[in-house]
Amino acid sequence: MYNARYFQAEFNDFLELHNHSDTPHTLYGPVVYIMSLGGKRVRPVLALMTSRLLGGDHKEALSAALSLEVFHNFSLVHDDIMDRAPLRRGKSSVHEKWDLNTAILSGDVMLISAYQLLEVYEAQMFKQLVPLFTRTAREVCEGQQYDMDFETQAEVSVAEYLNMIRLKTAVLLGAAMQMGAIIGKKGEKVQKHCFDIGLNLGMAFQLQDDYLDAFGDQAKFGKQVGGDIASNKKTYLFIQALNLATPGQRKELHHYYSEFNGPIEEKISRVKELFEATGAAADNLEQVKSYTMKAFDLLDSLEGETEVKKELNEFAQGLMGRIS
Amino acid sequence: MYNARYFQAEFNDFLELHNHSDTPHTLYGPVVYIMSLGGKRVRPVLALMTSRLLGGDHKEALSAALSLEVFHNFSLVHDDIMDRAPLRRGKSSVHEKWDLNTAILSGDVMLISAYQLLEVYEAQMFKQLVPLFTRTAREVCEGQQYDMDFETQAEVSVAEYLNMIRLKTAVLLGAAMQMGAIIGKKGEKVQKHCFDIGLNLGMAFQLQDDYLDAFGDQAKFGKQVGGDIASNKKTYLFIQALNLATPGQRKELHHYYSEFNGPIEEKISRVKELFEATGAAADNLEQVKSYTMKAFDLLDSLEGETEVKKELNEFAQGLMGRIS
Repeated sequence: MYNARYFQAEFNDFLELHNHSDTPHTLYGPVVYIMSLGGKRVRPVLALMTSRLLGGDHKEALSAALSLEVFHNFSLVHDDIMDRAPLRRGKSSVHEKWDLNTAILSGDVMLISAYQLLEVYEAQMFKQLVPLFTRTAREVCEGQQYDMDFETQAEVSVAEYLNMIRLKTAVLLGAAMQMGAIIGKKGEKVQKHCFDIGLNLGMAFQLQDDYLDAFGDQAKFGKQVGGDIASNKKTYLFIQALNLATPGQRKELHHYYSEFNGPIEEKISRVKELFEATGAAADNLEQVKSYTMKAFDLLDSLEGETEVKKELNEFAQGLMGRIS
Repeated sequence: MYNARYFQAEFNDFLELHNHSDTPHTLYGPVVYIMSLGGKRVRPVLALMTSRLLGGDHKEALSAALSLEVFHNFSLVHDDIMDRAPLRRGKSSVHEKWDLNTAILSGDVMLISAYQLLEVYEAQMFKQLVPLFTRTAREVCEGQQYDMDFETQAEVSVAEYLNMIRLKTAVLLGAAMQMGAIIGKKGEKVQKHCFDIGLNLGMAFQLQDDYLDAFGDQAKFGKQVGGDIASNKKTYLFIQALNLATPGQRKELHHYYSEFNGPIEEKISRVKELFEATGAAADNLEQVKSYTMKAFDLLDSLEGETEVKKELNEFAQGLMGRIS
């Protein structure tokens, strides 16, 4: 019964109760829009499952779960402006559907609303949840800044890249699970344990996303394959390919990521060959496996309800499973 | 000794201790920049003075005071983007000095940092401060949205306008004083009393600003006189002039605020004449006086240290004094 689908449904019911526009509608309408575009609700599900896994009532975690999802969507609204992205989940992004000012201000009010959703928790719990939320939110901003900085930075190391995705993506999954533990009234040790599961899942998830962007099955992946290569994005594949390349391969990679002006299909297919020839593709897969196994080992060693643990394991497998 | 200058100095010393850039500097550098541009530090001074007035140690309010000022500056950074303002306190605005993405993301991290600065307070106090901060922050966003909406809204009533400035400007001054009361360990009644003083001061302050934009002495006022008229801004003066105008005056006002294409000096000087002839200018001054007196009456009836109360009164007089 306590599978991901159940928690998604619980979350979506709760969201529906809360997702109506206050006045002014010009401010809150876009919030209702972006929140109703759907998605896998990964962060809410992790928070709810963790709370239930630890013997708590997952219903108590619903407001924190919504806070996480509102924050995540705030970051998407502002990131889409910064990335000039016209689409989000296949629909117009907020700044496209409305305009820049609306996207900025509606995003701001979402960040504030995310804090407001934590007010249902009593003072001692609130004093644990809010600082965790704040630290995480700051880190997500830092990750987004590093990601933008890397566009103009000549060389990015693997360590810098891993740190960027840790901040931009992974800590929020860690925080989701830690919030579940806080609401499940667990102490610092269990909280940290849960954070680390989410963190490792998040790393695996982002590294898999990088891999699939180049090597995924377009039908399954749901976005344009090769997009990162087309836009010269310094992903794990690219950075590690440069590290592992022969001088000739390195020269070729640099050529494709700078002055190359030919057909985009040629660029994508040749760069993918180089990712494979250098061993970067295999290495990327190794990293995904390594972070995933770390997450599963940590989950194994967490004391909790066996049934829910199995379901959380399956949910994570499902997220990761897109690779095979 | 406990005059506004003293609290400004205390605040600026505290700010200097905290105003250094974390990494990435591309994210935090703009924060240091905007925070060091100065200003009257009205919100911090109100928080510190209120706390001291109520018998507390104002040093305990320093972190909340900084939180208020960081929040206020966050709102300036994002508002300047939305208003396409090239200057802030006579220097380049953040989006001008850096770029749009930097201004969005550095603003976001300031909003988050404002929350972080409240973490020094223990759980029960934190649970009072953060919801007040959140409610206020939401209202400031709503005020900014109404302000933007009014640009394209054909008719704006006095009530709508007063509600807009209440949200955009006044509630933050109210919150500053209420935070001082919370940190001074006062109950809800005194908190509300303090909030109302700040709220009325904020209303008076904004209405005065509207008046001075048209009728201020350019040298004293420090910005281009007539800027609101030039940009067809629906201020209290304009809205009330329309309400009080004869049909002929109304037609003339509409003409200057729509199709008029002549010299801007003619527009400004003729519209000012209309503001005076209709009685809107005198009415605006009446409103300033009425809110100011309300604030001073409330301050009078607040129990607190007489010396500090006198200084707070003088500080407020100083803010309002620019009119004469």
